Amino acid sequence: MKIALAQLNYHIGNFQKNAKKIIDHIHKAKENRADLVVFSELAVCGYPPQDLLERSDFVEDTFACLDSIRKEVKDIAVIIGAPSLNPNSKGKNLYNSAYFIENEKIQLVQHKTLLPDYDVFDECRYFEPNDKFHTIKYKGYRIALTICEDLWDKLPQQNNFAKTELYTTSPLKRLMKDNPDIVINIAASPFSYDRDDTRTTILGDVCKKYGVPLVYVNQVGAHAELIFDGDSRVFSDKGEVKLQLPSFEEDFQIFDFEKIHEIDTLPLQKTNDMELIHDGLVLGVKDYFAKNGFKKALIGLSGGIDSAVTFVIVQRALGSENVHAILMPSEFSSDHSVDDAKKLAENVDVSYDIISIKKSYDAVVNTMTPVFKDLPFNVAEENIQARLRGLILMAYSNKFAHLVLNTSNKSEMAVGYGTLYGDMAGALSVLGDVYKTKVFELARYMNKDGEVVPEHTIVKPPSAELRPNQKDSDSLPDYDLLDKILYRFIEQNASIEDILQEGFAEDVVRRVIRLVNLNEYKRYQAAPVLRVTTKSFGIGRRIPLVHKF
Amino acid sequence: MKIALAQLNYHIGNFQKNAKKIIDHIHKAKENRADLVVFSELAVCGYPPQDLLERSDFVEDTFACLDSIRKEVKDIAVIIGAPSLNPNSKGKNLYNSAYFIENEKIQLVQHKTLLPDYDVFDECRYFEPNDKFHTIKYKGYRIALTICEDLWDKLPQQNNFAKTELYTTSPLKRLMKDNPDIVINIAASPFSYDRDDTRTTILGDVCKKYGVPLVYVNQVGAHAELIFDGDSRVFSDKGEVKLQLPSFEEDFQIFDFEKIHEIDTLPLQKTNDMELIHDGLVLGVKDYFAKNGFKKALIGLSGGIDSAVTFVIVQRALGSENVHAILMPSEFSSDHSVDDAKKLAENVDVSYDIISIKKSYDAVVNTMTPVFKDLPFNVAEENIQARLRGLILMAYSNKFAHLVLNTSNKSEMAVGYGTLYGDMAGALSVLGDVYKTKVFELARYMNKDGEVVPEHTIVKPPSAELRPNQKDSDSLPDYDLLDKILYRFIEQNASIEDILQEGFAEDVVRRVIRLVNLNEYKRYQAAPVLRVTTKSFGIGRRIPLVHKF
Repeated sequence: MKIALAQLNYHIGNFQKNAKKIIDHIHKAKENRADLVVFSELAVCGYPPQDLLERSDFVEDTFACLDSIRKEVKDIAVIIGAPSLNPNSKGKNLYNSAYFIENEKIQLVQHKTLLPDYDVFDECRYFEPNDKFHTIKYKGYRIALTICEDLWDKLPQQNNFAKTELYTTSPLKRLMKDNPDIVINIAASPFSYDRDDTRTTILGDVCKKYGVPLVYVNQVGAHAELIFDGDSRVFSDKGEVKLQLPSFEEDFQIFDFEKIHEIDTLPLQKTNDMELIHDGLVLGVKDYFAKNGFKKALIGLSGGIDSAVTFVIVQRALGSENVHAILMPSEFSSDHSVDDAKKLAENVDVSYDIISIKKSYDAVVNTMTPVFKDLPFNVAEENIQARLRGLILMAYSNKFAHLVLNTSNKSEMAVGYGTLYGDMAGALSVLGDVYKTKVFELARYMNKDGEVVPEHTIVKPPSAELRPNQKDSDSLPDYDLLDKILYRFIEQNASIEDILQEGFAEDVVRRVIRLVNLNEYKRYQAAPVLRVTTKSFGIGRRIPLVHKF
Repeated sequence: MKIALAQLNYHIGNFQKNAKKIIDHIHKAKENRADLVVFSELAVCGYPPQDLLERSDFVEDTFACLDSIRKEVKDIAVIIGAPSLNPNSKGKNLYNSAYFIENEKIQLVQHKTLLPDYDVFDECRYFEPNDKFHTIKYKGYRIALTICEDLWDKLPQQNNFAKTELYTTSPLKRLMKDNPDIVINIAASPFSYDRDDTRTTILGDVCKKYGVPLVYVNQVGAHAELIFDGDSRVFSDKGEVKLQLPSFEEDFQIFDFEKIHEIDTLPLQKTNDMELIHDGLVLGVKDYFAKNGFKKALIGLSGGIDSAVTFVIVQRALGSENVHAILMPSEFSSDHSVDDAKKLAENVDVSYDIISIKKSYDAVVNTMTPVFKDLPFNVAEENIQARLRGLILMAYSNKFAHLVLNTSNKSEMAVGYGTLYGDMAGALSVLGDVYKTKVFELARYMNKDGEVVPEHTIVKPPSAELRPNQKDSDSLPDYDLLDKILYRFIEQNASIEDILQEGFAEDVVRRVIRLVNLNEYKRYQAAPVLRVTTKSFGIGRRIPLVHKF
């Protein structure tokens, strides 16, 4: 049996486009003599549809789309993900289902059993969990259908409680009673660079544990915060990787199951974190623009590392001709800021304007004088500068229909070292899930084949340049130290006591965590963040805006 | 048996304060010869703790706090809500539990069975559902403990699918096997003015259906978006209301269960929607400030109805001495704008400054001229004004430590008729869940005992005053019409076809819904909204930022 793996990029609710893409690949599979073509989880409507699933019109359109696909299934079988109606009068409206279609007929609908409901996932919000298990015989093979999380026997996320498994049932254990020859898993498993190895291990272990080969088809493409990397695979019954599709791009490959034991096992790919983050972010920006129908991007370049790295990612995602930069020096900007920013724009051949904020700043400060009187310069004046820059970017955006990209990094978002409505402005945060120390690494990675980010931007001490001779280190611990504390607190939910046991200074740890807690209100109004770790700010991290812990 | 109902206002994670409040009321109950005192759901840690429940240090502190409470339980029994550990190695870390404590001993821990996971609720994210049911005998009465949603047999929210019940199990049916004499329900049930009657009906029906009396204790107080109204009750076995605690304030009352049939049944309270919304919003603002340690509020007054109504609510929540207003006229402001705003501030005795944005606006426009060249005035220049106002408010906020309140209403948030980082700025949106037509009603309600909101503010046609002679009606349908379409689409998930069947013009309906969908990105960065309906923008409505439905 020849199985085609269709690793495609879907657009939520764009039924016409999704249907065309799916049908084209069914025909392509047939032309290539595949017996079966496998698409990913909720492929018909796109994943994650979120509360659109609560709309009966959305669900009806999904069914109509699925029906148009069904009619194209001739002389081949298709496995595809879509919701299905829960026929009971009680319970959630829908199941998250895998459809097995053969000769225009839906032969089996197997529902998802393990519904992820943690981090960015809210599947219990929409779906009834499955409790019936069936396999299907096709071309002499007995096939067990599973959906994404169904295979995650282990704890799928960081947990400081004494837990070994998140779920109390094991769908695969149930399905194995039928002695399937193949397990097929259709997935919509979002990318995080620090979980890449986990996925290989978990899936390989499942094959070894049950002695069954696995075809795993994941979607690719980004939907605002979530980036899906694809990375679909075929595993042997010993957990060896026999086929691996690329990350961050669509692909279509056919695997001959008769020859699974003749095919060489692929070596474990040593992935490069920076390459993964870089490619993931490029895809994230590209899809945000393409799927929302935007063309042109605008970025404020400060000469600093965050805007530089953001800029390069956006330029690589959209092309130089679709990016514009604005440099907005103030009286506190050092000479090198403009020079570094100009050099960067020229390195990648992107147009830019220089717009000084001095006169606007003076006008605002003069306007405020009757109220501020002779109170000393403080954060108010600092933020006026940052907000004027945000205002100018948005004015340009409104005039020329460019989308402003946000340039904040995860470290500053964590401790609130940024100005709401100022440098926190923008439609999409490119680096909001990348700690400052990783931003430096990303810049180095971008320069691996020659200077793109100016060397001076990388080596100079970080500064917001909102008052004379300001340095980030005036207000914050060194980023090496800061990022370590933040990682323990945010990604690992470590307590202050746990972090202190690792030898950090108590006053620093307490101050950092206090800042993280105090600035929840800023992050609430932050741009959506492209997620590249297992714990990003946004929908996956829900901390009360009012609490005293 | 005398049962004390403790309807209290908790602060999430403020264990010291919550413990003191709870212990004080245990003593108070004892002094008043109560046999049992009932606190609300997750009272110990406050509700909703959200992802703080994923932190083992938070949970440990909750247990320590519960233990300090337990030691105070002498010669009385206590029913109180707190999480408990799931002892199994598999499954979610916690249960959402009701503790029955007597003589320093935890006699029963009954877990919540029905975990709401829709709208603003994410309880499946944290809790394992209960499947074991026990009642407890105390003072000759057999008591069944339930937690909030456990009693909601019917569909708890709008649903266009063919469903009759959301849950497949009924905890009360299971508990009734023990023939309890009383059902006690500890709740954290958020307020929405359009569900007030539903709650009475659902709870009364439960009593009638099972022929059992009910003590229902709900928490009161606000936590950012969510406002809890209290409104605790005692129902007879016939569903008659025998005791009703007030809405939006703490209360403590003792009910003598021996006399339940002698006590007069309370008449069904005819509530006034405007009174409920008004009082709810006042509490929402008050608690946001008190629990976050803020004192002073700042509001930009335009002379229009939204800022006027916001202003009065904030003034009533915090007192005139804690509110300041800024009036920011531009060249497009009409004379009456400043007059109306001044009159309003004077009506409620609040200080204000007038800060013209003209010079700042001119400076920014001049700065942009080399880039904008001779392109005509458009939304870019309009938004510069709105953003300068936001910037001035934030500058004042930074200088004088005032918190800026947002003045957007639900209608404009829905269709994106507002400027991101401009009039959409602010720490908390007071009217973001109140449609424009309801804002007018609220103004009339505020004026019921004499003019507070100037009459002219109420009767003049709404205008953003960002260009000469601008009116809202230039860009939007009449608010009467707009709000009806929005309500059907947002609150009721109606399809375009369903809405058209009600006789609205097709082009208007399609344009309104297109605007709602297009502006998801603005709402993503909007201030948290005080929720007063069953479907507010924010955590309870999760629409993809990238979709084409």
